[in-house]
Amino acid sequence: MTTLHNPEQISFASDNYSGVHPEILSALSDANGGHVGAYGNDPYTAYLRTLVKQHFGEQAEAWPVFNGTGANVLSLQACLPRWGAVICGESAHVNEDESNAPQAVGGFKLWTVPVEEGKINTDLIAREAHGYGFEHRAQPLAVSITQSTEWGTVYQPSEIEAISALCRKHGMALHMDGARLANAAASLNVPLREITTDVGVDILSFGGTKNGLLFGECVVVLNPEKVSDGLKYLRKLNLQLASKMRFISAQLIALLEKDLWLKSAQHANAMATRLADGLQQIEGVSLKYPQQANGVFARLPKGVADTVREHFAFYDWDEQGTVRLMCSFDTQPEDVDLFLALVRKAVNGAI
Amino acid sequence: MTTLHNPEQISFASDNYSGVHPEILSALSDANGGHVGAYGNDPYTAYLRTLVKQHFGEQAEAWPVFNGTGANVLSLQACLPRWGAVICGESAHVNEDESNAPQAVGGFKLWTVPVEEGKINTDLIAREAHGYGFEHRAQPLAVSITQSTEWGTVYQPSEIEAISALCRKHGMALHMDGARLANAAASLNVPLREITTDVGVDILSFGGTKNGLLFGECVVVLNPEKVSDGLKYLRKLNLQLASKMRFISAQLIALLEKDLWLKSAQHANAMATRLADGLQQIEGVSLKYPQQANGVFARLPKGVADTVREHFAFYDWDEQGTVRLMCSFDTQPEDVDLFLALVRKAVNGAI
Amino acid sequence: MTTLHNPEQISFASDNYSGVHPEILSALSDANGGHVGAYGNDPYTAYLRTLVKQHFGEQAEAWPVFNGTGANVLSLQACLPRWGAVICGESAHVNEDESNAPQAVGGFKLWTVPVEEGKINTDLIAREAHGYGFEHRAQPLAVSITQSTEWGTVYQPSEIEAISALCRKHGMALHMDGARLANAAASLNVPLREITTDVGVDILSFGGTKNGLLFGECVVVLNPEKVSDGLKYLRKLNLQLASKMRFISAQLIALLEKDLWLKSAQHANAMATRLADGLQQIEGVSLKYPQQANGVFARLPKGVADTVREHFAFYDWDEQGTVRLMCSFDTQPEDVDLFLALVRKAVNGAI
Amino acid sequence: MTTLHNPEQISFASDNYSGVHPEILSALSDANGGHVGAYGNDPYTAYLRTLVKQHFGEQAEAWPVFNGTGANVLSLQACLPRWGAVICGESAHVNEDESNAPQAVGGFKLWTVPVEEGKINTDLIAREAHGYGFEHRAQPLAVSITQSTEWGTVYQPSEIEAISALCRKHGMALHMDGARLANAAASLNVPLREITTDVGVDILSFGGTKNGLLFGECVVVLNPEKVSDGLKYLRKLNLQLASKMRFISAQLIALLEKDLWLKSAQHANAMATRLADGLQQIEGVSLKYPQQANGVFARLPKGVADTVREHFAFYDWDEQGTVRLMCSFDTQPEDVDLFLALVRKAVNGAI
Repeated sequence: MTTLHNPEQISFASDNYSGVHPEILSALSDANGGHVGAYGNDPYTAYLRTLVKQHFGEQAEAWPVFNGTGANVLSLQACLPRWGAVICGESAHVNEDESNAPQAVGGFKLWTVPVEEGKINTDLIAREAHGYGFEHRAQPLAVSITQSTEWGTVYQPSEIEAISALCRKHGMALHMDGARLANAAASLNVPLREITTDVGVDILSFGGTKNGLLFGECVVVLNPEKVSDGLKYLRKLNLQLASKMRFISAQLIALLEKDLWLKSAQHANAMATRLADGLQQIEGVSLKYPQQANGVFARLPKGVADTVREHFAFYDWDEQGTVRLMCSFDTQPEDVDLFLALVRKAVNGAI
Repeated sequence: MTTLHNPEQISFASDNYSGVHPEILSALSDANGGHVGAYGNDPYTAYLRTLVKQHFGEQAEAWPVFNGTGANVLSLQACLPRWGAVICGESAHVNEDESNAPQAVGGFKLWTVPVEEGKINTDLIAREAHGYGFEHRAQPLAVSITQSTEWGTVYQPSEIEAISALCRKHGMALHMDGARLANAAASLNVPLREITTDVGVDILSFGGTKNGLLFGECVVVLNPEKVSDGLKYLRKLNLQLASKMRFISAQLIALLEKDLWLKSAQHANAMATRLADGLQQIEGVSLKYPQQANGVFARLPKGVADTVREHFAFYDWDEQGTVRLMCSFDTQPEDVDLFLALVRKAVNGAI
Repeated sequence: MTTLHNPEQISFASDNYSGVHPEILSALSDANGGHVGAYGNDPYTAYLRTLVKQHFGEQAEAWPVFNGTGANVLSLQACLPRWGAVICGESAHVNEDESNAPQAVGGFKLWTVPVEEGKINTDLIAREAHGYGFEHRAQPLAVSITQSTEWGTVYQPSEIEAISALCRKHGMALHMDGARLANAAASLNVPLREITTDVGVDILSFGGTKNGLLFGECVVVLNPEKVSDGLKYLRKLNLQLASKMRFISAQLIALLEKDLWLKSAQHANAMATRLADGLQQIEGVSLKYPQQANGVFARLPKGVADTVREHFAFYDWDEQGTVRLMCSFDTQPEDVDLFLALVRKAVNGAI
Repeated sequence: MTTLHNPEQISFASDNYSGVHPEILSALSDANGGHVGAYGNDPYTAYLRTLVKQHFGEQAEAWPVFNGTGANVLSLQACLPRWGAVICGESAHVNEDESNAPQAVGGFKLWTVPVEEGKINTDLIAREAHGYGFEHRAQPLAVSITQSTEWGTVYQPSEIEAISALCRKHGMALHMDGARLANAAASLNVPLREITTDVGVDILSFGGTKNGLLFGECVVVLNPEKVSDGLKYLRKLNLQLASKMRFISAQLIALLEKDLWLKSAQHANAMATRLADGLQQIEGVSLKYPQQANGVFARLPKGVADTVREHFAFYDWDEQGTVRLMCSFDTQPEDVDLFLALVRKAVNGAI
């Protein structure tokens, strides 16, 4: 097959515009050849289970799936009875970007609350954590938080712990959408379990695709007591059971076995910091939210975005001129510097 | 990552026990690097659309998805109103092997009919094609057939054409589960469109994974008039929208651009023929169904299966000693011959 | 409001063509006036709960609902996880006459088996009671039987007991669609509990509408251990929670408090027997199934049905000239005799 | 059956705590006797269709259903593709009081916006009316408003017209939850069509139960072009198809044929006005929202509610001491005056 794109051209559009990390691609090759059991009955998935326990604790269970929406819908459905609802922030991916899947496929309702810098907290959750026992109200039996958030911010472990305590009080499960969990852990400089298992998260959508995988995420059960024991059936039911699962598992192994997950996330975060720092030094440019992970949300003077966009793809964020700039495992310092130079020129009217 | 399995060991368990064809793996590498649009806004998916038109006609549309169950549920949902039902054979994958997904996710009911050598026909379909306008009965508005079938047999073009005519008479859409369409086309020695577009199939689940892909199938709309114009929303809703879609598209390009789809299928079929021929020459062994594609369904004398199973994995098919033996793009003549030798020895009591 | 129909004209079309029994209508009036709690927080529903315990045992729970399809979908959903399936006869109402509701609303799959005189048995159920633990197969975790059946036949207590034993062996719940349970009990001359609680039925759709109610059925939990403890939420979720529930409960009280349920069923059954006996004495007329409850399935000579239909409505049953004749609480001997006379005349060519 | 409650005792808890209006009960009796076609094939349902056209225009279609949640879920589902979403106020019944039914049964998502005095408007709707064509976002293709609102307020015709214009601009359907439509029309002193058909409402849940029916609502299609032509299938699918439909239709006829709908609503509204006027004359009591229909939302001094509650049931509305007081067709001036006297005494510490 012929290469049809420019492999040198990166963007700031999304971490899923990037391709596959070479070590991940290499893992696919290493796992290839011969025949192994389908649907997870293979040595790679077995080893992944062990690795996940090493990262998240002995009780943890690994359930590889195809994509993030699948991971979220499956995770939440697995924590909820048919009459259950989820409290989440208005900005949550599960609310904004998953079409009707949570409702029509997952069967659950979302009770949304406003966010503060992309995060929710116990006060906000409490607004909707009521009506227990009242059959007319979809019962709030789970909370979903995103780490790092859709706004590029990061929950402190203590913030998660407080949310988890409220969840326990009301019998709610705590789900974490960890599509960018690695970036949060890198930002906080903590192991994965310190922002998941150790602070009371019950089930996790652990992200792979946005951290250099070709495809593949992993639903990680952190607290089996809060999760349906029929997860294997639910994964199949939700169209998330891969036949050649060895190839998802092998990628996740390559991510987790050594420190690739961390190195890639640290790199992406560092690029975002370089970008944020540079932008803030340009007159008329400011950050809308604090840069804490691999995303930068910057307000650009009028017209600047469109000029720079000719060279780098990225998305507009609001109608006040804010743009979202995502860094990835493969963003290079030169890319950042070129972007900054272009903004500077555009601000100065030089282009 | 370390290789954890024996890349020399093949099986006859399933075509999804096999790995990735080297040309497919190579395509993943060729499509890697740099940034391209996510969710199908990339040059590979664009080119795939063109290729699919070349194979299936100008009107055809390509919608890459993750897996076969996803392709089937999405395809059928896209042809049906909320009150629609599907007529299919009892042995259909969508009936036997997709959990509650067609019902709970797709929202449709299956009206099943018996099969003859794994196939259905107009007489069988007619048993359930009634009750139109009667609101109590789930309305039969689609038929689903599998080509090649779950029993290793192949529909003749004329058989599909007859079914298609009945569908048109009742306003039903005709869906084809083509997880092994390549094997059928290779068996019949016809281009793909002669058993799809040209004989009135409206929508197709075109299989990739069982023909050497790492993962990935393609929903192919053959007759847009019978299919919802909201397929892009339905794909997302059904958790089948890949972010790094370029990597599904690149694999499908590698399959379809030259004749890899055909070569791999021809090879798998030839291995099945070699196996079927050899088995029939062994005393006490017979075929349950005619071998027409890449599967062999053989009745083995008592005890033989368990002896041979120590060397090669495969599945029991019924309680009368029939076993299912699937061949793949990577099955080698030596594998077949070794299997045959083992059966011969076991039959003779030599092992 | 003006009466728009002929209150003297009955039919043999269905027991739901009939109106309301006068004692039921009277109960509506008795329960009227003043304010009581909505959604079941009223003294009628409380008393109904007591009455249901008297009929079905101390463990029994009463959940009034609107209609039969609602009762069936709710009952079965309440016994099943999201990956559960129901084994039932092909002729079951839940299969034939409830549109996609079991699938799309209940979320479950039906594994259908052929029926013998409208009934299923352990051998038939065993055909589909397999695949436990295999995530690809919708898990058969409930059996549904109809008493009396859609074909007018009646399960003996021992037949139900045998089915129940098989259910327990496989961990399946046993549901009974009792839209016409009263007719079965009257036919067998046993109390309601002898064909439900005492023979291992776990949950029951207890019919009211077809036995003289204006509307209203009752889901009766017979074995709380096999039923979700969230039934109150599920009833709401399935659109079956009546606000002025006192009026369903009052009707059910009127049915169950004294022997109205029995008297009405005995009467309908007796009318069916009179009809069956008369028909069998007419040359060329025979019964397709044994008449055991309030339905008669009779094969009429060609042309007879259409002649008689000018006087009495009824439904054709098959394409071989069988008609279904249903008797109701308000069918009168004169109606039966007139029907018989018409058939006789038509057979003799006198009309 | 014995009367088990006090038919003299009314409450201010809800209009569904009340019983059946005598004229409605009488209609049930008039429609009784003899046999008529089930499932709507009866002369009452036929006549109802005519009456509905008289009230709502020649294009209007009547679809009787069981209850309000059923009417809302069915109406909205009938306007939406599988990927459709509904914009509604946070206080909407469909959001607050219908469990997961809109999501899990209807299959749609709700985009909620804040309300102003219980109402939404074009500015509020515009917050969520975006993202068209973007497959990740549940597509906002319907708006639902409640008339009169859950807060006892009433939309002016011009307000609805403005919303309707916005709907047309975006291709959204406009649904009205008219559980208390009669109260709104009475309040505005306009015919029903002036706040529905004439101002661009596409589909209506027309309320019966809260206006004196025993049970029964009516989905009224006002603009068939915006509604699925498979509504008859959807009604069955949503468990809302009554077999003895004549009894829902007869009640609706009694409501609509003469001016019973209006007289009952005028009476309930007048009682609410009497109550509101009286309360506002009591020191320390004020209204939270303007009283425009049959509900009064009053802030009572601390302790007053609990004292009065010993005599009349009603619900607390918020944690600031507001109570909701609903009047019904059977609320008497003496009841209101007694209530007022009790509040006065309680405020004065006399009880």
